Amino acid sequence: MIKAGIIGATGYAGNEIVRLLLGHPQAEIVWYGSRSYTGQPYADIYRNFTKLVDAACLDDNMEALSAEADVIFTATPQGLCASLVNEEILSRTKVIDLSADFRIKDVQKYEEWYGITHKAPQFLEEAVYGLCEINREQIRNARLVANPGCYPTCSTLSIYPFIKEGIIDPDTVIIDAKSGTSGAGRGAKTDNLFCEVNENIKAYGVASHRHTPEIEDQLGYACGRPVFLSFTPHLVPMNRGILVTAYASLTRPVTDNELRSLLHRYYDNETFVRVLAEDVCPQTRFVESSNYVDVNFKIDPRTNRLIMMGAMDNLVKGAAGQAVQNMNLMFGLPEETGLLAVPSLP
Amino acid sequence: MIKAGIIGATGYAGNEIVRLLLGHPQAEIVWYGSRSYTGQPYADIYRNFTKLVDAACLDDNMEALSAEADVIFTATPQGLCASLVNEEILSRTKVIDLSADFRIKDVQKYEEWYGITHKAPQFLEEAVYGLCEINREQIRNARLVANPGCYPTCSTLSIYPFIKEGIIDPDTVIIDAKSGTSGAGRGAKTDNLFCEVNENIKAYGVASHRHTPEIEDQLGYACGRPVFLSFTPHLVPMNRGILVTAYASLTRPVTDNELRSLLHRYYDNETFVRVLAEDVCPQTRFVESSNYVDVNFKIDPRTNRLIMMGAMDNLVKGAAGQAVQNMNLMFGLPEETGLLAVPSLP
Amino acid sequence: MIKAGIIGATGYAGNEIVRLLLGHPQAEIVWYGSRSYTGQPYADIYRNFTKLVDAACLDDNMEALSAEADVIFTATPQGLCASLVNEEILSRTKVIDLSADFRIKDVQKYEEWYGITHKAPQFLEEAVYGLCEINREQIRNARLVANPGCYPTCSTLSIYPFIKEGIIDPDTVIIDAKSGTSGAGRGAKTDNLFCEVNENIKAYGVASHRHTPEIEDQLGYACGRPVFLSFTPHLVPMNRGILVTAYASLTRPVTDNELRSLLHRYYDNETFVRVLAEDVCPQTRFVESSNYVDVNFKIDPRTNRLIMMGAMDNLVKGAAGQAVQNMNLMFGLPEETGLLAVPSLP
Amino acid sequence: MIKAGIIGATGYAGNEIVRLLLGHPQAEIVWYGSRSYTGQPYADIYRNFTKLVDAACLDDNMEALSAEADVIFTATPQGLCASLVNEEILSRTKVIDLSADFRIKDVQKYEEWYGITHKAPQFLEEAVYGLCEINREQIRNARLVANPGCYPTCSTLSIYPFIKEGIIDPDTVIIDAKSGTSGAGRGAKTDNLFCEVNENIKAYGVASHRHTPEIEDQLGYACGRPVFLSFTPHLVPMNRGILVTAYASLTRPVTDNELRSLLHRYYDNETFVRVLAEDVCPQTRFVESSNYVDVNFKIDPRTNRLIMMGAMDNLVKGAAGQAVQNMNLMFGLPEETGLLAVPSLP
Repeated sequence: MIKAGIIGATGYAGNEIVRLLLGHPQAEIVWYGSRSYTGQPYADIYRNFTKLVDAACLDDNMEALSAEADVIFTATPQGLCASLVNEEILSRTKVIDLSADFRIKDVQKYEEWYGITHKAPQFLEEAVYGLCEINREQIRNARLVANPGCYPTCSTLSIYPFIKEGIIDPDTVIIDAKSGTSGAGRGAKTDNLFCEVNENIKAYGVASHRHTPEIEDQLGYACGRPVFLSFTPHLVPMNRGILVTAYASLTRPVTDNELRSLLHRYYDNETFVRVLAEDVCPQTRFVESSNYVDVNFKIDPRTNRLIMMGAMDNLVKGAAGQAVQNMNLMFGLPEETGLLAVPSLP
Repeated sequence: MIKAGIIGATGYAGNEIVRLLLGHPQAEIVWYGSRSYTGQPYADIYRNFTKLVDAACLDDNMEALSAEADVIFTATPQGLCASLVNEEILSRTKVIDLSADFRIKDVQKYEEWYGITHKAPQFLEEAVYGLCEINREQIRNARLVANPGCYPTCSTLSIYPFIKEGIIDPDTVIIDAKSGTSGAGRGAKTDNLFCEVNENIKAYGVASHRHTPEIEDQLGYACGRPVFLSFTPHLVPMNRGILVTAYASLTRPVTDNELRSLLHRYYDNETFVRVLAEDVCPQTRFVESSNYVDVNFKIDPRTNRLIMMGAMDNLVKGAAGQAVQNMNLMFGLPEETGLLAVPSLP
Repeated sequence: MIKAGIIGATGYAGNEIVRLLLGHPQAEIVWYGSRSYTGQPYADIYRNFTKLVDAACLDDNMEALSAEADVIFTATPQGLCASLVNEEILSRTKVIDLSADFRIKDVQKYEEWYGITHKAPQFLEEAVYGLCEINREQIRNARLVANPGCYPTCSTLSIYPFIKEGIIDPDTVIIDAKSGTSGAGRGAKTDNLFCEVNENIKAYGVASHRHTPEIEDQLGYACGRPVFLSFTPHLVPMNRGILVTAYASLTRPVTDNELRSLLHRYYDNETFVRVLAEDVCPQTRFVESSNYVDVNFKIDPRTNRLIMMGAMDNLVKGAAGQAVQNMNLMFGLPEETGLLAVPSLP
Repeated sequence: MIKAGIIGATGYAGNEIVRLLLGHPQAEIVWYGSRSYTGQPYADIYRNFTKLVDAACLDDNMEALSAEADVIFTATPQGLCASLVNEEILSRTKVIDLSADFRIKDVQKYEEWYGITHKAPQFLEEAVYGLCEINREQIRNARLVANPGCYPTCSTLSIYPFIKEGIIDPDTVIIDAKSGTSGAGRGAKTDNLFCEVNENIKAYGVASHRHTPEIEDQLGYACGRPVFLSFTPHLVPMNRGILVTAYASLTRPVTDNELRSLLHRYYDNETFVRVLAEDVCPQTRFVESSNYVDVNFKIDPRTNRLIMMGAMDNLVKGAAGQAVQNMNLMFGLPEETGLLAVPSLP
């Protein structure tokens, strides 16, 4: 059994890691870390775990935790993992960081977009970007995995095959994304109250959202040159789910058949990526509470553009599920272990 | 492997049986029955099953199905199961009926409340009411199980220990219930459109809902005499979940400790019933997409009443989950098999 | 023009008073009081008022405000109005208090249920309970009006005619109420986050909610003796609306016709109370953003009970609308002035 | 008093026209047309009008109606108005058509996108596109107004000043739009059931939505040459509201100040268009149930793009409100008459 510790277990992503690991046949949770609720029974914070979790919350002492755990998940605000991790910890424990600390290789870029000083730049080169479908082999041998952001996961998987194969012009990429409200976290902010979110939709972080450089990096690796793109996230009155609608100009005439074959070639062996049939649009409800990503595209000959679409559950494939998928790879387990729950609908 | 057939696989309850059986280690689905969608790929109707279910929908030929299946789930409108079932089918296949056809032992009462003629009254005596926590032993040997209604399941489990032990006066029971909209089914009715349900709450079936006699029967068996009660269901703008708030007069002075011990005595050995701590109210989100029922109570000394509360997922413990729980019992499997998914939140 | 000041203008009830007074032909707002946002443009807090309100928020100095205003609305937490009001203020300005400070005549009862010391018990006798349909005449001459609570307004109007006429037994009243989330206020609490409220229903304040004695008082006045009742509020995932489902035993045999005539006799002259047709259940969406209350009832001969139902918008008739209705009465205007907006649907 | 008749009064747009006209000081409704509900009391279909509307539904006889009404609103499916309207009707009654029949001047284009034969092409030249802020003067003298589509209204008002002034490149326009579900109408379709829409977001009509040519026409008129753009609508789990996020490349370096002045120059005299402050994103809740459109923009120097945003209520400014605004213009009334209701929040 893999002994797992979670720092930030009382956030929505942490809670989802708990849910997934409780159903994982080869992992057990040894540390429910929560600075805010230290000492309180975990199931008093998340009563869905009544009768299922007896443990109380512990603090975020990563040193102590690394002595007990085989793997540590840090589901914490930006900066915390970088400030706690060190060589000693990494020498005895694998770390999967759900924050952005190790996602962007360029320290300066990280510090500009996040507005904080990076506390552990020495691990940036070693850290592996944990988008399993793309970096599978490096993840297997990693000590430190940077678990991708929710928007970057959905955006990258929706666009990757097309940009990599030169089908679309990298200078024309526009990503219009929509997310459920759990992505905003469990902090008590007026903006996230039910009555402020319900019956409403809004854009936020226009031309300035922190996931922009992360997506640009990944798509840049794919096409072999720097990418600058427009990324606009929107807040939708639902709990879970991310939908990406991306636009780019085609570099040459293409047919639906040609692109469909391409997409299937990239993804048919991927358990968690599902290529939908022609004219079927991804919907977030079809992947809810699962680790699947549904992708599709539409050619618009009138404008010579490709519209690329993807849907996933932001808390699963966009956070906790992908983290567990990374754990499976890092520990030599079948990648799907504990992640095959069927999407729940309605 | 148990071979399972589903008649009515494209309703919400049918879809949920599919979801649960796909995760069940000892069952496989051999028949996706749907009169409306015969011939169409099942995953085209419910795209959450993309890449997971290849089968196409079949008709509702129970005869043919019984030759292939070990168990048949009928998730169909009232009257259909009774019109199809016969001795030959029951002699070779177990039947779990999710409709009301075999829940009420008194034919006349059934026909009055449901307004249809019962087509198979000869099986009423044999049929076992599949509320597992109460009728476990009879279910093990049943050929035909009447899977309980959603409201009756939650209501009965919330009230049963108190009425059975004579703590409350059976003549004073009032049940005010609230349900998510999946309980209204997937039929295309104006009343169930998003814009008619969202931002709204209403009572319906006041003093006339068909689940009333079913609850009265079960509570009557518990206390040993006929019960007449008030039952008012309400439609809530959410997909899943039932909440029951029930009221009754106390027959004698009691303490929280005394009743709490009583409740624990009844339910501590039940995997799927969770007795909450004092002053913690059940919430539907804490049991979402799981087979758990959370129950609690509050003594009101000012009015000498007991307020009894229960929450569950109407599609799981209120329909498909309980059906699978019944199947497990009928086939000698551990009752929890395939049903231990942790509630998903948020 | 009536000059109106609002203390607590940035809460949901305060915001609704602003909305209503902007549409009122004979009132103007001279003071947008908000301790939290003093100095900030009001329309920066509530952007629905962009281009419509230029004023900035002021503090909660009731003395200063009373020098400028003809009427003060206090839409503040319990205790604030009682701590600020005095004879000098009341001698020159009318006060409509939306908190509970002056609703309950018995100081001791108030202090027990609210857990605070009453700071101005000397005005309790003078204060008029502002349920316009019942206390219209006293309101016309009042200096200080206690604007009723949301649950008490809907509960009282639903039950009043029946208890006053002796149709129901006062000892058997049970009120099961459901409210949209705006009733919980705009404070930044985790419990009221979108992801905690959405897809969920729960009871709260079981057998202990502060509106209980207020309802008991009003129904007690109606039937001429003390009433003790069960009141259970529930939180529903919608912004606005309160639905009351109330139960009581009939004191004698009655017919639908008889009770329907009774209800019409009480309410046909009331602009804001609408008696629905037989078998039509009140729904909150039919009164949304309006000052109407829809009421109806159902006789249940099986249990000898009467089920009484009411629906209204908690922010309008349950708070701001009723406050404006009170203002109209206090200033000799037609009661409906500025309040005839048609309910908005969907 | 203007006598108004409504054909299609029981759809959501028709219902909204009723709501607005009931509050209009100079109009009265003389005909509630509804083919589906002929003979039934209108308030039985929309119970928000209980006690407010006594009339029963009439059929869709436009001839008869034109003898009684000064203005006819057709809130019906595509094709109906064109099949009913004729010179005689137009000679005595003004017609405001909320369908697409007279929005697109090019018959062939209409027939291609809508897949039906145009029954009254002889009125296409005469018909005025009723986007009041742009075509105000022609509307004043029109007999037949084509009330704009919801998406085109919000899209055009958000983009118009920039494309007209040559700030953006017309070949690069991408519009990603999101709508509440009332836009899908009140027809009983499975896809629009609560449980299919709630907790979900999806794109639809990708690269093929019928509002595309309408937006292209309007923007083409603005910039003086044909425009081909990408338009993708999305369905959001809320009742009302449309949000447009539009992207285009800048034709030259600009500053926020410069564009902000431009926008204010276009819209400061417009009652119903509100230019938000820098960095304030439009949100649908800030215009709910009102006739306002909130617009803003953001310059993205990294990609040399302009992001243009707009929010409005699809049933008001996107349908019924704009229709009434057109009526006011056509009858010489102040444009705002009956339309100044303050947005309701939350």
